[in-house]
Amino acid sequence: MEENKIVFIGAGNLATNLAKAFYDQHIKISQIYSQTENSARSLAEAVGSDYTTTLENIINDADIYIVALKDDVLGELMSRIISGKENALMVHTSGSLPLDIWPDSVKRKGSFYPLQTFSKQRKVDFRNIHTFIESNNSADLILLEKLARCVTDEVSELSSEKRRQIHLAAVFACNFSNHMYALAEKLLKQYDLPFSYMLPLIEETERKVHVLSPREAQTGPAVRYDEMIINKHLELLSHEPEMQQIYQLLSKSIHKL
Amino acid sequence: MEENKIVFIGAGNLATNLAKAFYDQHIKISQIYSQTENSARSLAEAVGSDYTTTLENIINDADIYIVALKDDVLGELMSRIISGKENALMVHTSGSLPLDIWPDSVKRKGSFYPLQTFSKQRKVDFRNIHTFIESNNSADLILLEKLARCVTDEVSELSSEKRRQIHLAAVFACNFSNHMYALAEKLLKQYDLPFSYMLPLIEETERKVHVLSPREAQTGPAVRYDEMIINKHLELLSHEPEMQQIYQLLSKSIHKL
Repeated sequence: MEENKIVFIGAGNLATNLAKAFYDQHIKISQIYSQTENSARSLAEAVGSDYTTTLENIINDADIYIVALKDDVLGELMSRIISGKENALMVHTSGSLPLDIWPDSVKRKGSFYPLQTFSKQRKVDFRNIHTFIESNNSADLILLEKLARCVTDEVSELSSEKRRQIHLAAVFACNFSNHMYALAEKLLKQYDLPFSYMLPLIEETERKVHVLSPREAQTGPAVRYDEMIINKHLELLSHEPEMQQIYQLLSKSIHKL
Repeated sequence: MEENKIVFIGAGNLATNLAKAFYDQHIKISQIYSQTENSARSLAEAVGSDYTTTLENIINDADIYIVALKDDVLGELMSRIISGKENALMVHTSGSLPLDIWPDSVKRKGSFYPLQTFSKQRKVDFRNIHTFIESNNSADLILLEKLARCVTDEVSELSSEKRRQIHLAAVFACNFSNHMYALAEKLLKQYDLPFSYMLPLIEETERKVHVLSPREAQTGPAVRYDEMIINKHLELLSHEPEMQQIYQLLSKSIHKL
């Protein structure tokens, strides 16, 4: 990939992890843009690139722009981002936005979606992260595949529609399951018990679905709809009406499934 | 523990895993009871014990009875279970039932609660499973601790009230998070996409909470309450009103937390 000049627009969780994964594979990054100086500078330092906090100072002669901004921010800044970059491949990293979010004036459209939960504080191993790519032309699809294969072994072409479906499923599998951990933590704090008690349980719950389907792996009071336990639990949650509602809704849903 | 005669009443997921863990540590199990002949026989074969499918044929001269039945089944069978075993230590394995579930005629009451999700098909490593014990007398508490330490390094005395609180938190951390995987799987089936795409994501979500609190670890559209994505997702779920309701409730709850 050494012949391609790459710019990152955005220095958030995803951009940080992806840029560092490229850097580790000796892929040069020319510039980082973020409106937050701290984010721009610290990522630029980590990957040995220049940086800017001004959209208009983004260089125009790069080959690939990887735009890793929040969906609504990308929408707002679109015209300023693409201006002057008519010959470049413009790539976004959103699970939800279609390829067509790039206006017609962008001739080379791309999307590059690594399916993972990223935090700046935590470096992830990219090698097994499923990365879904899409482009409006086959030359750039090949280019994106080549780029992706530098950091991961799991690359697939995927349509915007399918990507959006995967993103929705990922909200359940990742964000919502993590929220269940967060609610457990909240309860345990109230009870003055350590969250660390949950860790072997959480670990085993995750490991199980590598060998059993989640439906088969399910245990606990809701599967058999044990009303005695369920009612006791709802009573224990009487000071948390929202958690009570979640408990009730999910127990019914588990039992139904 | 060789001086103690142990009987298992129940041969379900928990009993199977616990009895096998004892067996691996050369703790002899004298008898297994289950009303389901298959379950009784296959567990008895695995741990080299006798078995019976008739409550009245359970031997009366054991020292410790480990009763691993569903909460309501234990209630129903209570009088037949304890009859003739006045000198033995009666132990249940329920997260929700108090020690007092044992009637006064039972002089030596115990509870032994390994905090884990068990499936018969899957052998777990007991060594790091937090096991909570309780008894109405200190001699039996010491006996239960000795028994527990044969299979795990993580043993704590815990009151019935605290155990019930942990069980409630575990329903969120384990059963409900697993249900989120199950709902993701259901969606992906509809979309004709493999659930295996989710595995690295689920793995990383679990690993993160070993180093970040779940609240800090949270990512995705709900944290920032990105209405554009949320509304798109709700639209995608229009054929699944229950999942739509879950999506909405959990997104609000994440945003609030």
